[in-house]
Amino acid sequence: MRVRIEITRRPEIADPEGVTVVRALQDLGFGEVTQARFDRVITLEVSGPSTEVVEARVSQMCKQLLANPVLEDFRVVIEE
Amino acid sequence: MRVRIEITRRPEIADPEGVTVVRALQDLGFGEVTQARFDRVITLEVSGPSTEVVEARVSQMCKQLLANPVLEDFRVVIEE
Repeated sequence: MRVRIEITRRPEIADPEGVTVVRALQDLGFGEVTQARFDRVITLEVSGPSTEVVEARVSQMCKQLLANPVLEDFRVVIEE
Repeated sequence: MRVRIEITRRPEIADPEGVTVVRALQDLGFGEVTQARFDRVITLEVSGPSTEVVEARVSQMCKQLLANPVLEDFRVVIEE
């Protein structure tokens, strides 16, 4: 099964990467950019008996390794 | 305008991060994972006179700063 995990920074958490990139773009002459947000997408190939089991297992992988639950939210989407 | 940039590693380029994470997941007891791919999504707030101009400008930002054209492909999507 292909599973897509969308990991986004929690809205209340400061985003230094975004702030830095906006400044860098403006310095390069792209003054029209006012905001930037960086998210991650992880695509996994996973085997399992059912989509429910795979979804639960992948959520556990996120909590244990793939996402940082203090800073990030994640969403698990079974693709096929 | 909100612009979404999807940055993916070129398929012919080795992906050490993916390989490492598959191994780490297997070590944690998630042996059902056989492949992992890491992509990036950047969301920008950009002003501009038309979607065509914004798309062209954002493509230039990708080439100059946001993506690594040697390792990565990017796709620009105007969201609103």
